[in-house]
Amino acid sequence: MYLNLDGEGPAYQQLTRAFKAAILDGSLGGGTRLPPSRALAQELGMSRITVLSAYDQLRAEGYLQSRVGSGSYVSELQLTPPLRPPKATPTVIRSRYAERAVLHAIRPTYRAHQGLRFELQFGETQLTPPLNNAWGRELARAASYTSLERTSSWGLPALREQVCRYLANRRGVQADPADVMIVSGSQQAFGLAARVLLNEGDPVVMEDPHYFGAWRAFAAHGAELQAVRTDDEGLVCAELPEVPPRLIFVTPSHQFPSGPVMSLPRRLELLRYAETNNCWIMEDDYDSEFRYDSQPLAALRSLDEGDRVIYVGTFSKVLFGSLRLGYMVLPAVLREDFANARYLSDMGGLAVEQAALAHFMESGAFERHLRKVGKALKQRREVMLEGLRQHAGDRVRVNDSPAGMHVLAWLPGYDHAQLDALIGYAHEHGLGLYPVAPCYQQKPAIPGLILGYCGLPDAELREAMRLFGACLDAIDARRHEPV
Amino acid sequence: MYLNLDGEGPAYQQLTRAFKAAILDGSLGGGTRLPPSRALAQELGMSRITVLSAYDQLRAEGYLQSRVGSGSYVSELQLTPPLRPPKATPTVIRSRYAERAVLHAIRPTYRAHQGLRFELQFGETQLTPPLNNAWGRELARAASYTSLERTSSWGLPALREQVCRYLANRRGVQADPADVMIVSGSQQAFGLAARVLLNEGDPVVMEDPHYFGAWRAFAAHGAELQAVRTDDEGLVCAELPEVPPRLIFVTPSHQFPSGPVMSLPRRLELLRYAETNNCWIMEDDYDSEFRYDSQPLAALRSLDEGDRVIYVGTFSKVLFGSLRLGYMVLPAVLREDFANARYLSDMGGLAVEQAALAHFMESGAFERHLRKVGKALKQRREVMLEGLRQHAGDRVRVNDSPAGMHVLAWLPGYDHAQLDALIGYAHEHGLGLYPVAPCYQQKPAIPGLILGYCGLPDAELREAMRLFGACLDAIDARRHEPV
Repeated sequence: MYLNLDGEGPAYQQLTRAFKAAILDGSLGGGTRLPPSRALAQELGMSRITVLSAYDQLRAEGYLQSRVGSGSYVSELQLTPPLRPPKATPTVIRSRYAERAVLHAIRPTYRAHQGLRFELQFGETQLTPPLNNAWGRELARAASYTSLERTSSWGLPALREQVCRYLANRRGVQADPADVMIVSGSQQAFGLAARVLLNEGDPVVMEDPHYFGAWRAFAAHGAELQAVRTDDEGLVCAELPEVPPRLIFVTPSHQFPSGPVMSLPRRLELLRYAETNNCWIMEDDYDSEFRYDSQPLAALRSLDEGDRVIYVGTFSKVLFGSLRLGYMVLPAVLREDFANARYLSDMGGLAVEQAALAHFMESGAFERHLRKVGKALKQRREVMLEGLRQHAGDRVRVNDSPAGMHVLAWLPGYDHAQLDALIGYAHEHGLGLYPVAPCYQQKPAIPGLILGYCGLPDAELREAMRLFGACLDAIDARRHEPV
Repeated sequence: MYLNLDGEGPAYQQLTRAFKAAILDGSLGGGTRLPPSRALAQELGMSRITVLSAYDQLRAEGYLQSRVGSGSYVSELQLTPPLRPPKATPTVIRSRYAERAVLHAIRPTYRAHQGLRFELQFGETQLTPPLNNAWGRELARAASYTSLERTSSWGLPALREQVCRYLANRRGVQADPADVMIVSGSQQAFGLAARVLLNEGDPVVMEDPHYFGAWRAFAAHGAELQAVRTDDEGLVCAELPEVPPRLIFVTPSHQFPSGPVMSLPRRLELLRYAETNNCWIMEDDYDSEFRYDSQPLAALRSLDEGDRVIYVGTFSKVLFGSLRLGYMVLPAVLREDFANARYLSDMGGLAVEQAALAHFMESGAFERHLRKVGKALKQRREVMLEGLRQHAGDRVRVNDSPAGMHVLAWLPGYDHAQLDALIGYAHEHGLGLYPVAPCYQQKPAIPGLILGYCGLPDAELREAMRLFGACLDAIDARRHEPV
């Protein structure tokens, strides 16, 4: 008897696999009597127990039948048309969602320069030393007392309570824990909102420029997206469309990526428009903890007497990227719908992480961490601005905002092709630069870069700025080369 | 000047809030000059610093304007129509998804008896002592070396590698880590598959009976669901529809909730149908680790030469419910679409948990845990079956399967109303019983109960069975009462 043993894993598994293959491809036909275990064991140089185990498994799975007193026989199976080889690889008929997801696949833009020495990413503060040990202790502590049962879709009550205290103290938002849902990062909040509020084709307004991650999240769900202009007071509400959207997505505390704070008159105008037109507003308060010129400014939600603002906050930016915890403050009338959608999505988050974070906040460690990060970021911003002045000079025009984790640098003397060349050249030399163009619905006339300063300590940042200047020099030199 | 201080939190915040309220409701009109800080401080009995901080905040947020040398003035703001009180609470226009989610809201059925002493839930093994300390140590260890950066949407490579080893060893599935996606529980897998594979209205086939959680997940996404009959060989493939579905959802290792293993001929028939009709199959292998009569049987995926089976496994049932980790083995042609959908959903899972689990598996602790749980479950099953024989007798007809975490008990001598009465009576007496009817598209003729034995230790289970008998006695007595 020829059996093809593949040499992988325990002997009885190899034997089982070999028999299955022979039976399924018909070389060991239905009704064939199998040799007695002792004989086969001898023939294959295996133990009898191995052969018996294989026979048992094959019998349990239906490949063999036993006849009392007369041994084991290969089952009669319907083997044609043959399953192997298959007729063809499966034809993928994508859903509309999947089609849109391919169209808007995010990864080529975000973290395109991962692994480079001077990666000017925006969004995750790298601290030295990192939080690992402190966080590990919090997790171990939390694991010892956290129930191993499921959390509700809303998240751990203790963390929701801490979030409410934080929001009252730092964002001027009076929220009840019953309105707070802990989410697995802002991205999950966007997806849940899209599912709950939008049918395919429903209109959504975002700012121009905007966070491309949120744009793509709503686009993948089939929203009809429109970007409305911003200026130095934020969203230009006078240009909101006459046909009202279902949802307006804004970053009022710190316009991403251009920087302005949405002024009070514009906030009132936006809330009035939403009230008149029965719109929802989603406020993405992504880095409000870090203001360098004043105390944090109250969130738009704090003005929201109409209970129309879905407030989204995140811990990922202030703690670390892989933590993936955030929260939403939901209008009361939306509680049930979001809870249903969350339950359907993943039933809720992990209890231990949430317990660890709740204790981290309650103990004051979070507050201390925020101050430490704030100090580091303020310093790094100074280093970057000085480095730009020194090495880039008037080749860049910086949209500074005394907040956050990045500056926007316009390059008025260059065109988009030259910016792409600069990015390519910089990448080859270990410097990761991110263009601002993907944040715009219409490509801006002047090319610009989002320069994040949160990922590198001061000394590295100085070097990065020097390198940036050198890359600009190289691109300048090329511009003056004879064609 | 009348200011309404609410007594909550730091004094300068109270003052800021009070000013904002007065300015926004018009009682402090645009252009009004604010008193000098010293004077107001004296009037309110606060420190001058407090008042200055409030003025600074209000200025930063746009409520006040400074005029050089002449103090601070209330900003001229557009305050009509007034935002407070709002015209009306927001009118919720639900998306179709949200409408369906309400219709299929799962929570009334699942864990309806949470908190009862004898809760016969099916799905989460409660061990004494619980895993807390061991898991806490794993987490702390993992936190110390796990990068705090984001994981990819696929999950931690180390865990995907461990999953592949486990699948090869225990499920007969030869998978490559590149095909394995770590998910936040099976529920997330269902949602991702629905989004990637189905447009609203696309047909999906499930078994009858089926896991209501999966049914509702696909229903919420708008699938047209059809349940196809099962018998003691599993899905009756001859009754698969002529108009083929996009997806067929099966539990071949252990039909949920009725128990049979899908026979080999039926597996071949199903794979052939899927090949002929270009369908996807989703295999929910939810409790395959626990077979009491043989080694685990190879998964349907192991026969899948056509690469059409999306295999879903979970750790939640073998470890603990709040862990919420599972995995999918994806057909190669679907990798990109699922990765896109996952990224849009929540970008991926938490690295530390995955690292902890990978180590737990690699160290052999997982294997030991499985053996321990398997032993406990096998014992508990015996206790339940003996208890049912002793206290329920022939009032129940048990669909036993030597596997898993529950038995199905039919009550041929009762109707559905009497079953509901039994469940209600049992609940009042601390016993949690779950009906099988929600698992059927068409209510079965005979009422039945899903009796989970995984949640209680032996002694409690014996008591639960005694109590069950007593509840049956009470319902029987009622039946013989004169009307």
